[in-house]
Amino acid sequence: MNFLVLSLFGCASYGERLVVEEEAVRIREASLANEGAWEKMEALCDGIGPRLSGSEGLEKAIQWALDTMKREGHENVRAEKVMVPRWVRGKESAFLLTPRKSRIGMLGLGGSVGTPFGGIVAGVEVVRNEEELEQLGKGAKGKIILFNNPMPPYDAKKGAGYGRTVRFRVNGARLASAHGAVAVLVRSVTAHSLRTPHTGGMNYGNAKKKIPAAAITTEDADIIARLRARGVSVKVRLEMEAKDRGLVPSANVIGELRGREIPEEVVVIGGHLDSWDVGEGAHDDATGCVMAMEALTILRKLKLVPRRTIRVVLYTNEENGLAGARQYVKDHAGEIENHVAAIESDSGGFRPLGFSVEMKDSEREARAAEQLKQILERLSPIGATEVRRGFSGADVGRLKSGGVACLGLRVEGSKYFDYHHTPADTLDKVDPKELNLCVTAMATLAYALAEMPGRLGD
Amino acid sequence: MNFLVLSLFGCASYGERLVVEEEAVRIREASLANEGAWEKMEALCDGIGPRLSGSEGLEKAIQWALDTMKREGHENVRAEKVMVPRWVRGKESAFLLTPRKSRIGMLGLGGSVGTPFGGIVAGVEVVRNEEELEQLGKGAKGKIILFNNPMPPYDAKKGAGYGRTVRFRVNGARLASAHGAVAVLVRSVTAHSLRTPHTGGMNYGNAKKKIPAAAITTEDADIIARLRARGVSVKVRLEMEAKDRGLVPSANVIGELRGREIPEEVVVIGGHLDSWDVGEGAHDDATGCVMAMEALTILRKLKLVPRRTIRVVLYTNEENGLAGARQYVKDHAGEIENHVAAIESDSGGFRPLGFSVEMKDSEREARAAEQLKQILERLSPIGATEVRRGFSGADVGRLKSGGVACLGLRVEGSKYFDYHHTPADTLDKVDPKELNLCVTAMATLAYALAEMPGRLGD
Repeated sequence: MNFLVLSLFGCASYGERLVVEEEAVRIREASLANEGAWEKMEALCDGIGPRLSGSEGLEKAIQWALDTMKREGHENVRAEKVMVPRWVRGKESAFLLTPRKSRIGMLGLGGSVGTPFGGIVAGVEVVRNEEELEQLGKGAKGKIILFNNPMPPYDAKKGAGYGRTVRFRVNGARLASAHGAVAVLVRSVTAHSLRTPHTGGMNYGNAKKKIPAAAITTEDADIIARLRARGVSVKVRLEMEAKDRGLVPSANVIGELRGREIPEEVVVIGGHLDSWDVGEGAHDDATGCVMAMEALTILRKLKLVPRRTIRVVLYTNEENGLAGARQYVKDHAGEIENHVAAIESDSGGFRPLGFSVEMKDSEREARAAEQLKQILERLSPIGATEVRRGFSGADVGRLKSGGVACLGLRVEGSKYFDYHHTPADTLDKVDPKELNLCVTAMATLAYALAEMPGRLGD
Repeated sequence: MNFLVLSLFGCASYGERLVVEEEAVRIREASLANEGAWEKMEALCDGIGPRLSGSEGLEKAIQWALDTMKREGHENVRAEKVMVPRWVRGKESAFLLTPRKSRIGMLGLGGSVGTPFGGIVAGVEVVRNEEELEQLGKGAKGKIILFNNPMPPYDAKKGAGYGRTVRFRVNGARLASAHGAVAVLVRSVTAHSLRTPHTGGMNYGNAKKKIPAAAITTEDADIIARLRARGVSVKVRLEMEAKDRGLVPSANVIGELRGREIPEEVVVIGGHLDSWDVGEGAHDDATGCVMAMEALTILRKLKLVPRRTIRVVLYTNEENGLAGARQYVKDHAGEIENHVAAIESDSGGFRPLGFSVEMKDSEREARAAEQLKQILERLSPIGATEVRRGFSGADVGRLKSGGVACLGLRVEGSKYFDYHHTPADTLDKVDPKELNLCVTAMATLAYALAEMPGRLGD
């Protein structure tokens, strides 16, 4: 038992303190001197590339993760089958036809239907939100509706404005379809663009008619909005071959460092192995997968085997369905009560700030947050000591109702949504030193939670 | 005569000073309260769009500029014919084929030949500069050569690193062709990218064989360079329909505010009306054209008619040939000695810092710079007082050998090369307030140079 754990219960002694500080220092030094995380990023991002559910890229990534975790000596390395949607983008384009012909920067939204062959040609009406669509009323019939609601710039206190504007991407097609629109365009959910389209998931919900849905760049949205505001007619051709090709097999990838005392109790760490079909899915979420894999390898190399098992879970299909996280809960229903914590990283591999924590039971969550603050003092040398309560990740969120303490790595977030779901989410945006700081944070917290005598939140 | 002019000769009086300050204040207040410049930007950028030499867009822009300057009451509004190259991009694409298939963000370089039908498929070798190409030697034969020399980040003291790295775009095809390469790719000349390709001009010089040349995004250049550094074979397919379609008629557009005392003496102000065929050519160089047009209109509205003529010249074909500037010198050879100054804006419509000045005669240039410092004191309320000696613009540079004082608007330049020659050079990147500050600077300096008794540099 070590100081870190004892300190939570107020019975640390000087000698024990030295022992635990040594462990934290060893993890940090091993992580920061290490090139393993970067090598994994190169293999996954450059070598394999995009990894959309149902694609060859994701299949290769699954095999690579299995091979890598076996090669690095982890236990119980395995693929757990998951059926995932196979949505295929195909060729796609959008052109402004009136008042002049020019190419619109676009990406179809994941899950959208395609257009008829030859595309859809229609006038465009611009609305800022649901109210303006209501006001437009019958004016939407036969039109392409553009939802043009700018995401606010990043704010160090409030964070990114993603949550405030993503609903138009998710619900826009359903809303516009209900008013008789023939297609929907959505302003890319970003506050900073170099004519960079941002794709993402969408949902037809109870729509009677599924209409094609695409994101266009903020620049194109601004151009169309300015033209319409001056009373200029805007006509657009949208062509999309997008198709839903049903469910295909995929897998969550798992590997373990088995615990030395109570191996049946588990601390999960991980990210999602799938990505959108553009860019390299570097920050979203190769970094999450790689930092979990590397954390496990570093603990193993250091022979730091904690009381409980640390389990890497690389979820499939986070981006367009969460099938991997749902299947994990089903497959492991019998051992959910033995999951003491599940840590996710899905906000990019930037400089780590700390962790969020989220539990079904609010009182347990409050206690967990207090305990977490003490644990994260061990991360003060790298500045990752902040604790927040609340949303911790889409994949670990599936475990919340089972009583599991869900944790999310929090990182400096000013750039994440510049790259998110775009062709620009590439390895050059990742700083190897920052990534190693994330590995340090993930390995230290996983070790602490797997080593402590009680459970987080008790 | 006013204080501003007198102050250059050390004989200002209190009463005269008040008069000139009033003029400077009137120009500034009229410019800053004005929406005319922004309305022109909307018409030119959104309504007309890209304006490559020989394109319908440029033809429309020429007609629009003529109509606008006539409507605003300027004198001698006319188009002066210029033959310009018509290079047509056509369809183009690049794909990584090995080690995985994915789209490469690219733009063919202006003036490049196309590929054979079906494209060029070849292995890629990466070089950083001319020396590394020499070292590669015969290894370049049959390959696609990637020049991967990153432009350094913007530095407030040194400025942008454009001048240090653009030579690979200009000369890369000639250099690679001499070593038997089948095509050349060039890292986009920018320090900041969201998978944004930057086109631009290139030159085959004395190349025996013209090979296709394209810019790829910094991200794609990094991916290929990292793969090659790991020893991974990289194969690419490059397809370009690019074609040179010979010379076609275009025009410089001219309008004047005729001088009240010596109208045969001329102060030229202007920018280039053409742009690349992507984006909206907003900062490059709609802002330059619009601020000159608007400066003339504001002086006319204020009834500030100086002693000499102020002539707006909107040059054609700056981007891929400078035919407009060359033709202007030919057409006006007889009156070049009556050109007392030529002011250009071609660095974007950002916050103005001051002006550069460049003259054939170094002693005259030194005197001009000193005089300019005194004139620009009138711009201290907007902070545009800096004077630098040296390069002032590609278009006005053609007049330098004729003894004309060439001046260039200098602006805050940290973002210019993020947008330069890209689809992202769109109107949203222009701040209407900053543009009006540029109008203030341009109108004030033009008025001062047209009003002063002697010539700048005398």
